[in-house]
Amino acid sequence: MNFNEELKDIKNYSAGKPIELVVREYSIKAEDVIKMASNENPYGTSPLVVEAVRKVCDKMYLYPDDSMYELKDGLLNRFGVTESNIIIGAGSDQILEFIVRAKANKNNSVLMAKTTFAMYEIYAKAVGTAILKTSSHVHKLDEFRDIYKKRDDVKIIFLCLPNNPIGECLTKDEVYQFLREIDDDTLVVIDGAYQEFASYKDKNMKIDPADLIKEFPNAIYLGTFSKAYGLGGMRVGYGIANETIISSLMKLRPPFNITTLSLKAAIEALKDEEFVEKSMFLNFEEMKRYEKFANDIGIEIVPSYTNFITFLLKDDKNSTFIANSMLKKGIIIRDLSSYGLNAVRVTIGTSEQNSQFFATFSKIYDAG
Amino acid sequence: MNFNEELKDIKNYSAGKPIELVVREYSIKAEDVIKMASNENPYGTSPLVVEAVRKVCDKMYLYPDDSMYELKDGLLNRFGVTESNIIIGAGSDQILEFIVRAKANKNNSVLMAKTTFAMYEIYAKAVGTAILKTSSHVHKLDEFRDIYKKRDDVKIIFLCLPNNPIGECLTKDEVYQFLREIDDDTLVVIDGAYQEFASYKDKNMKIDPADLIKEFPNAIYLGTFSKAYGLGGMRVGYGIANETIISSLMKLRPPFNITTLSLKAAIEALKDEEFVEKSMFLNFEEMKRYEKFANDIGIEIVPSYTNFITFLLKDDKNSTFIANSMLKKGIIIRDLSSYGLNAVRVTIGTSEQNSQFFATFSKIYDAG
Repeated sequence: MNFNEELKDIKNYSAGKPIELVVREYSIKAEDVIKMASNENPYGTSPLVVEAVRKVCDKMYLYPDDSMYELKDGLLNRFGVTESNIIIGAGSDQILEFIVRAKANKNNSVLMAKTTFAMYEIYAKAVGTAILKTSSHVHKLDEFRDIYKKRDDVKIIFLCLPNNPIGECLTKDEVYQFLREIDDDTLVVIDGAYQEFASYKDKNMKIDPADLIKEFPNAIYLGTFSKAYGLGGMRVGYGIANETIISSLMKLRPPFNITTLSLKAAIEALKDEEFVEKSMFLNFEEMKRYEKFANDIGIEIVPSYTNFITFLLKDDKNSTFIANSMLKKGIIIRDLSSYGLNAVRVTIGTSEQNSQFFATFSKIYDAG
Repeated sequence: MNFNEELKDIKNYSAGKPIELVVREYSIKAEDVIKMASNENPYGTSPLVVEAVRKVCDKMYLYPDDSMYELKDGLLNRFGVTESNIIIGAGSDQILEFIVRAKANKNNSVLMAKTTFAMYEIYAKAVGTAILKTSSHVHKLDEFRDIYKKRDDVKIIFLCLPNNPIGECLTKDEVYQFLREIDDDTLVVIDGAYQEFASYKDKNMKIDPADLIKEFPNAIYLGTFSKAYGLGGMRVGYGIANETIISSLMKLRPPFNITTLSLKAAIEALKDEEFVEKSMFLNFEEMKRYEKFANDIGIEIVPSYTNFITFLLKDDKNSTFIANSMLKKGIIIRDLSSYGLNAVRVTIGTSEQNSQFFATFSKIYDAG
């Protein structure tokens, strides 16, 4: 059977390995596995959210309120926008997909950093659009500018702020300056999946969605409940943009795109800012230990504005070997070799998990 | 800002109204609202599933096992297929979307009954493919044959068995006879969202996925946990087809396309067949009351193989007026006027809900 041309080029996203797989493959007990590969919140989910969701488990048979009235209400109050500025996705991933399908096609192109969130490229390939990348791994706006000016067909620019999987960020001023040079018909995606972390660490990094879309009608801000809010498994994200963009993306949103329990979880999560604040605080306290650890054993790091840290390894070390060796010890980290980097990405865990990481990594690093 | 051409034609799916909306708009207490518009299981979810999901609510921060190993294992044991024959979607809806995006494009066409599941057309429009429909509302295979033979570009045929929103079904023999006449490169979708109901009522309607795909390598069977299994709010469906089809559709599957709690719910739901059997039994017991009710007040019905029944109204009655009047009384049913039918679709509820429906409907029907 034949399939559409675009499918030929697509390779699937390689997700961080789940605990279940390590249990199956290495016979390690589930409670002994430490998952540091998917940037989940190591402090779990707000207990208030867990309790609220438990209470509505008997409503699983009912489709969710597809207008998502209450969640949108929570978001518009939080961000100072109106309902027509908001779209909800099954993770901000899904909104990325809507964006690509709405704007990109075989006759135009999209632009992104060399090493950034893998789904930009995967979704772009699925529509057969041209994919342009900077030569630097991290976001260098001058390189974005150069490429943008040389082409007249760039319809989407992805800025991942801060950037996954490397961790660097750009300041608001840098981003706004760049946006002023971009044409009205080019949609600029500000992927803020880790913005809570970046703006906690440095206020200069903070992108305010309402301010952004007021000044730039061609920008869309993406946020997620997967990281700071501790709901990675529930698949809820949001997009904030002007009404023209949102109403077009809404055409591609399938009905009931988030679950009944996810909707409840996100609504309640917005009410517990204290949990988020505490997660941010602990994250950056623990991050200091990683910075010191890396320094002590002579590993180069990229200063991180997220809940993960990337170790750039020397040539005599091999990221795949190290990640696999850690896996066999029950610690799941992310090998970045598929990005063309001899590096590993490690989610900052709880204090105890991090101590375990340091002990195990030291041994493996010395040996490998 | 400009968007891709295909978006112009898309109108969004109009979902059954949620309880929350009726509460907001008509100030009716949530516990007094009866939802009969979305074909959810009125007996809720298996208590075993509810309990199992409650226990893992503290895992919401973790992404699900993206291999969906355990769920696939449950399905392959149930259906006697292998892992490579299975794809999991956020509802079988999402698999419909993968199918359309994998096979249909601007240069070919898709074929469906005049009145069938609305998402076939919505997804087809999103890729700009030609949409062919039979002239009859219900599935008439001779009409499918005629259209198919006149065109050489039909790449997908949708058979909704039994058919939503009308309720009719085709026998396995009719379907197999039809499939024998279809070209290898045309993908035939057997949408079995309500198959548990149809095969409970009449074994001749039963399509066995393993047998189907063995005989017809160009067929895909779709099933869902939303109806018989009482998990409408959790968005889990599955597709069963030969490996070539599945591996192509998998390229369009975004990672983590179902939630951590949905995965758990579906795994556990497969273990409680008794709940499903009981739901089927009660559904058809209650269906008899609807048949009698319709007969008593002189409304024509379509014999239904599902958990809903469609009332075909006489010309002097108006489906929109009736559905709206019911809504104001807190009973949500589906007006089928958008399908070009002067008809309403009613989900078979619990005994108590149905009694309430009959009492309210009688009054409104006499007045309207």
